Amino acid sequence: MSFEFKSTSFIGSERGEKTGKTFTAFSPETGEAVGPEFHSATNDDLIRSCLQASIASHLLYRKPGHEKAELLRKIASNLEERKADIVECASLETGLPNARFEGETGRTCGQLRMFADLVEEGSWVDARIDTADPERAPLPKPDVRSMKRALGPIAVFCASNFPIAFSVAGGDTASALAAGCPVVVNAHSAHPMTSEIAASAISAAVIECGFPGGTFSMLFSSGYEIGSALVAHPSISAVGFTGSRAGGRALMDIAARRDEPIPVYAEMSSVNPVFVLPGAAEERPEEIADGLFGSFTLGYGQFCTKPGLIFLPMGSGYDAITGRLKQLSGEAASVPLLTKGIRDAFIANTNERGAAMKGGNGFGVDTCLFEAEWFEFLEDRSMAEEIFGPAAVVIGYEDIADLHEYEAQMEGQLTVTFHIGDEEADDVSEWVDLFERKAGRVVFNGYPTGVEVCHAMVHGGPYPATSFPGTTSVGTRAIERFTKLVCYQDAPDSVLPDELKDENPLGIVRMRDGNIGRG
Amino acid sequence: MSFEFKSTSFIGSERGEKTGKTFTAFSPETGEAVGPEFHSATNDDLIRSCLQASIASHLLYRKPGHEKAELLRKIASNLEERKADIVECASLETGLPNARFEGETGRTCGQLRMFADLVEEGSWVDARIDTADPERAPLPKPDVRSMKRALGPIAVFCASNFPIAFSVAGGDTASALAAGCPVVVNAHSAHPMTSEIAASAISAAVIECGFPGGTFSMLFSSGYEIGSALVAHPSISAVGFTGSRAGGRALMDIAARRDEPIPVYAEMSSVNPVFVLPGAAEERPEEIADGLFGSFTLGYGQFCTKPGLIFLPMGSGYDAITGRLKQLSGEAASVPLLTKGIRDAFIANTNERGAAMKGGNGFGVDTCLFEAEWFEFLEDRSMAEEIFGPAAVVIGYEDIADLHEYEAQMEGQLTVTFHIGDEEADDVSEWVDLFERKAGRVVFNGYPTGVEVCHAMVHGGPYPATSFPGTTSVGTRAIERFTKLVCYQDAPDSVLPDELKDENPLGIVRMRDGNIGRG
Repeated sequence: MSFEFKSTSFIGSERGEKTGKTFTAFSPETGEAVGPEFHSATNDDLIRSCLQASIASHLLYRKPGHEKAELLRKIASNLEERKADIVECASLETGLPNARFEGETGRTCGQLRMFADLVEEGSWVDARIDTADPERAPLPKPDVRSMKRALGPIAVFCASNFPIAFSVAGGDTASALAAGCPVVVNAHSAHPMTSEIAASAISAAVIECGFPGGTFSMLFSSGYEIGSALVAHPSISAVGFTGSRAGGRALMDIAARRDEPIPVYAEMSSVNPVFVLPGAAEERPEEIADGLFGSFTLGYGQFCTKPGLIFLPMGSGYDAITGRLKQLSGEAASVPLLTKGIRDAFIANTNERGAAMKGGNGFGVDTCLFEAEWFEFLEDRSMAEEIFGPAAVVIGYEDIADLHEYEAQMEGQLTVTFHIGDEEADDVSEWVDLFERKAGRVVFNGYPTGVEVCHAMVHGGPYPATSFPGTTSVGTRAIERFTKLVCYQDAPDSVLPDELKDENPLGIVRMRDGNIGRG
Repeated sequence: MSFEFKSTSFIGSERGEKTGKTFTAFSPETGEAVGPEFHSATNDDLIRSCLQASIASHLLYRKPGHEKAELLRKIASNLEERKADIVECASLETGLPNARFEGETGRTCGQLRMFADLVEEGSWVDARIDTADPERAPLPKPDVRSMKRALGPIAVFCASNFPIAFSVAGGDTASALAAGCPVVVNAHSAHPMTSEIAASAISAAVIECGFPGGTFSMLFSSGYEIGSALVAHPSISAVGFTGSRAGGRALMDIAARRDEPIPVYAEMSSVNPVFVLPGAAEERPEEIADGLFGSFTLGYGQFCTKPGLIFLPMGSGYDAITGRLKQLSGEAASVPLLTKGIRDAFIANTNERGAAMKGGNGFGVDTCLFEAEWFEFLEDRSMAEEIFGPAAVVIGYEDIADLHEYEAQMEGQLTVTFHIGDEEADDVSEWVDLFERKAGRVVFNGYPTGVEVCHAMVHGGPYPATSFPGTTSVGTRAIERFTKLVCYQDAPDSVLPDELKDENPLGIVRMRDGNIGRG
């Protein structure tokens, strides 16, 4: 480990105070404290970070795309320089294997570069021009031009389960910076070492690229006070959050009570139901069982897209798939969960459902597979609640028409998945129609874990999956969350941003009098 | 008047109960009750309308664009058939002249047809396709396709000041129906006659076009109970509102406290500052004075885009413009305001600022022009608050750099306006940079009243101008408020909506592997 921890918050280009409450990371493998003592941000740290973000937001507002792209790429290369330390710390702090964080660092850097390409190209701003018609009767038609622009300072709350890709330098930070918004990160207390290294990568890039110091701050904290105060601070324009339903809702409520309410883009909770149609269960029971097992135990079952409810048709397919899932679950080794809190909740939730779960070394637990009868499942709504960790519930259905009953009580989901047989593409349409209205993503013959970072991805869905079903926290559309619309009426060309100047100096795709092109 | 009033709510294709509290319209000219007694919706009416909307939302979800376009065009032609009655009632209920409502009906029908064209063409859904790469290492890349889809039933709250264009058949209703969402309208109690005629035009179109009855409902009410219960009803997915800051905030708070919080797209309050630069004040004082006077008294000063604060450079320009504004204000006849409540608030607000306003016949008031010293204005924040009605405040500045002080305390605005002289285009850039971050629209050498209905329009802005600065309630982008995102991963082509099918049967503009075109 070459990294030297200072263990204080990042307040723009300065470091925070050492007077706040201290805390450490814990090793999920042993349950013991590891690494240095970190200092929670003080209220003064918080106020200074928000002030600096506010000043930076004026400077960032008109930063051209190529300068923002340079910053994002520099962050990516700085992360790669620190990759060995990041992987070591992330593994130590989460109990997950190194290989996972090799991949997650790659994903995070790829995501930063995707946003760099997006803002360098520039068409993402949705530039629209309606040209004037001075002769129109009864009133002349003005020249009207509009585009998306940076919203202002964004508070980013990190997830426990993706210490790199949904944390300090993750998708919320990348998309906010790409939009031209300064970021104040509330670091997750479970991985402060990984957080400090990522923050140092961003902070160095901010200096190297000549951006204002307030472009990036990161606050350490071991409790809820700093995060709550951050969302309530008048300088903050919006919030990005990935975490629990209770946590997300608490921030939504704080934001809604402000003098000036602001949006909280929270990605919260999902049980990601998987519907296996009869043909699929007959044709490939083992393949489906192996795939489902791999998906619900990936990352030790601590993914927001973990398939927690598995609907199987009663019959030989049910027996084959459930038998195989039981066998794999029984053979699985104990795994450490991310935090003591997550471990304790897992034990409580699985024991409530009838498991005899005790917990192993450190934050260790065993894989749990539950089976539920159809009516038992429908009547006991707690069966449909998310269990964070390596557990899933198998529900047998007699008739596919029964799914109507589940849909009527299903909450919003990040994903729903259908496994269909060779002849079932027509049969599934009705179910897609029904379930897609409550989901962000519909997966066919696959597994919901693994969220592709691309233009078309929707990592979203109705509440409680997220707070805004019209948005996504993964993929290029994530940038839209951190923007406002501005329109200019009869503006002199010299005053207009380049994106809206008449000759289209950036060569971006625009809508001009209703036509989409590079005119 | 050929229209026969039934005076009950519209519950899908049926009519509501006659047991609710009754109320009437009032003539602002006389202050007397006019027209029939209307029956407030009962709680049962409300529940039935939400249930019908919920059922309809399933049927509307996959309605093709050309069918929605047919409905919107039919609504427009039905409104035109009823135009004489609409104009007569709107004028009677608002005290505004007939000619205004000839124009407003035209604007409303034009808006409906604009959304018809938009959804018939189809590219508005922002379809995106990222094609698969089964060979990618370490993991195959899935096929991912996404688009915007209908969100669900929308509650629409009507404005007092635009009884047609921001009311029953106005922009919120048009954009929600265009998106494929059923609408439950909360009619404004100040213009029930106009509302019933517009509702009959929509209801007839719903039947004529074979849409489900629950596509459209309209609830009459004289108090706040029905509107509050509507926003709280679990069937409602989002809210569109145009009205006061207090009213909008109250609905935002109800929506935020729901088990499932929903967005309230509220367009609320704005003082629309106008900054006249020294060159402009020298070059064309009379033109600017006449334009400002026309704008702040248009519709008797009851526009959300009324220029309420006018910043003039001290000197000869100030004297010329203010002198002319005073002269025009002094010569202006008394005008009736929309409601007794608006009239009473206008009298209270203007008297607080030192006017000796008494009020005339009916809801009549006189035009008020206030002058404020720079420091007096900065110190007394109430001077910067919106006065709904024919009043404006002129503030003299010594040095244009003083505007920094105002910006620091300025709230979010629908518009800011700059008047610049022939040589001042360069000077204004700094001020545009500063003020546009707090506004939805920046107007140059014009007046903020008159909101063009077009692709590029932004009728929005930061709180308290609206609740979401990333949205607009006027123009084609308004449809985006009432959508959710859905993505399909590795879906069989037959399951995909036409917008995402591989061969692009609708021929819409899509993003395919990052490239924008009709592929």
